[in-house]
Amino acid sequence: MICIHSPASKGQNPQSFFRHGNLRDHPETSERYRILLGAVKGHEIVEARDHGTDPIKAVHSPDYIEFLMTAWGRRSELAGITDQLVATQFPRVGMNARPTGLQGQLGFYLGDTSTSIRDDTWSAIAGSAHAAIDAADYALKAGKAYALCRPPGHHAYAGYGSGFCYLNNAAIAAQRLRDAGAKVAVLDIDVHHGNGTQGIFYGRDDVLTVSVHAETSAYFPFYSGYANETGAGTGEGFNLNLALEHGLGDDPWLAAMARGLDAIQAYGATALVVSLGLDASEHDPIGVLKVTTDGFRRAGALIASAALPMAIIQEGGYICDALPHNLAAFLAGAN
Amino acid sequence: MICIHSPASKGQNPQSFFRHGNLRDHPETSERYRILLGAVKGHEIVEARDHGTDPIKAVHSPDYIEFLMTAWGRRSELAGITDQLVATQFPRVGMNARPTGLQGQLGFYLGDTSTSIRDDTWSAIAGSAHAAIDAADYALKAGKAYALCRPPGHHAYAGYGSGFCYLNNAAIAAQRLRDAGAKVAVLDIDVHHGNGTQGIFYGRDDVLTVSVHAETSAYFPFYSGYANETGAGTGEGFNLNLALEHGLGDDPWLAAMARGLDAIQAYGATALVVSLGLDASEHDPIGVLKVTTDGFRRAGALIASAALPMAIIQEGGYICDALPHNLAAFLAGAN
Repeated sequence: MICIHSPASKGQNPQSFFRHGNLRDHPETSERYRILLGAVKGHEIVEARDHGTDPIKAVHSPDYIEFLMTAWGRRSELAGITDQLVATQFPRVGMNARPTGLQGQLGFYLGDTSTSIRDDTWSAIAGSAHAAIDAADYALKAGKAYALCRPPGHHAYAGYGSGFCYLNNAAIAAQRLRDAGAKVAVLDIDVHHGNGTQGIFYGRDDVLTVSVHAETSAYFPFYSGYANETGAGTGEGFNLNLALEHGLGDDPWLAAMARGLDAIQAYGATALVVSLGLDASEHDPIGVLKVTTDGFRRAGALIASAALPMAIIQEGGYICDALPHNLAAFLAGAN
Repeated sequence: MICIHSPASKGQNPQSFFRHGNLRDHPETSERYRILLGAVKGHEIVEARDHGTDPIKAVHSPDYIEFLMTAWGRRSELAGITDQLVATQFPRVGMNARPTGLQGQLGFYLGDTSTSIRDDTWSAIAGSAHAAIDAADYALKAGKAYALCRPPGHHAYAGYGSGFCYLNNAAIAAQRLRDAGAKVAVLDIDVHHGNGTQGIFYGRDDVLTVSVHAETSAYFPFYSGYANETGAGTGEGFNLNLALEHGLGDDPWLAAMARGLDAIQAYGATALVVSLGLDASEHDPIGVLKVTTDGFRRAGALIASAALPMAIIQEGGYICDALPHNLAAFLAGAN
């Protein structure tokens, strides 16, 4: 399978983040890039091309992109900044004012304290988005492709990032396929609900979004991922959340995926974006499901059986011995 | 003047909070209580009575109160908690799901990283609210009263806290006056926009809310405090924001206050709640205005000239040499 990556994924390498009142090790480090790239050895590996910002702005608001590109350069607006900018105050429901100052804009454009801006954030996330665009293009030409997107993207909304995500690579790939004339579905199998992707397409009927994830009432992203989120307006009926009890393993996970694929078939999709999180793994350091390496192989085979042009977009999946094996197994199953 | 306080204000004493990616000294410590209590020497000082939770629930949602009363006892739900619970992920516009787990509820009920839950948070904030209730009662009986509320309250909304605030003491006092039959106005002269108070009464025409504060586009609370926020529905026309350029001093500050008092007079208020922040001081460590001690005296006199029963509720104002003098000056002016 064609595997696309960007060397800029070596950037945006935070070491810690603030959670529950303490600093914790940050799981979304650039070491993930090295490990995942090692796991695709034997496949055809190509570097992402630069597609500029137009296909990114097809999904994200221009002011958010402007913020991402310029925030680090504005860091002198705040005292005491060393290596990263982090949001600590946030707008709530009913607050739509966009402040002009950097401190307020941090919370306006970033939804939590884990999603920081550093000197090399933009190059890393743009490289990741470009890889996703290439994967969409290759999917139409060659049937399937994998984009090693790091940082990941599925928690990023049109106007703000969150959950280690800035640019929604899967949504950008879906829009790229849409613009090429395909009827598109996104199947998100990351252990976390694909809330940003859902949000981006929530009011649209031309992209079906399906997320298979661990129940969110006591798990990130907490405030979405529920079965009653089915779309809005024209998009009503075009979002499907399939949440699994924590602790479940291969069979129920694959059964939920099969249900999602049935919905995708009924929808009549002609192209598929797979948000491939590997954090449903039984060994994932922040996961809550019990999926085995063989489960990932079966997932790849199951999704490939839909026989649709397929852009596989890397999402989460954190460092453990099983991580490279799980990626290799999924791609082997899907090939 | 009668000055009400609660010894429970010695509790909820955070030392640091997370901002801009670093831990900073927390300005809202219980040392403020000791300093402010020292400043009212010579006045009639009484301890707050326990009014139970009914007058608090007249303003705040029962589920939020339940959260505040029980969160610390649930801390074992999260790993690695030492002395405080802090929210680091937050719901955004369009996310209304209330998660069942503690981690998601932290962000559901607390709007930023500065507003922590500790073992003695509830007793401190309840004591603060009880003092405000007493001030409302004394205002009707004796004409005016001051409540030394610490922690402060005006950034707390009906359903969540933020900005060092948990229970909106001023709103609780206003509702208490309302329930006694008064037509109520709230005049907030804290340097920060009284966003929680605005939010609580935004859809109502029976409490006029006026806030005189420093411009918020590059200053907390960032996402509100603008002139175009005038109320909603029945409340349209009953919220007035008077924002001042950073760096201004006594005269423009007092002029804005006079404008607010004109609106309060035109409204026909029969009782007044003053949200008395002292952080407009030229010496305040986190302030951005240049108000002198004499300015606070003049503010007290100006507001007293409205000749309304008046509950003065302590809001912000942080530790500096001028802090006790500014409180004493305001109360002397108002007496």
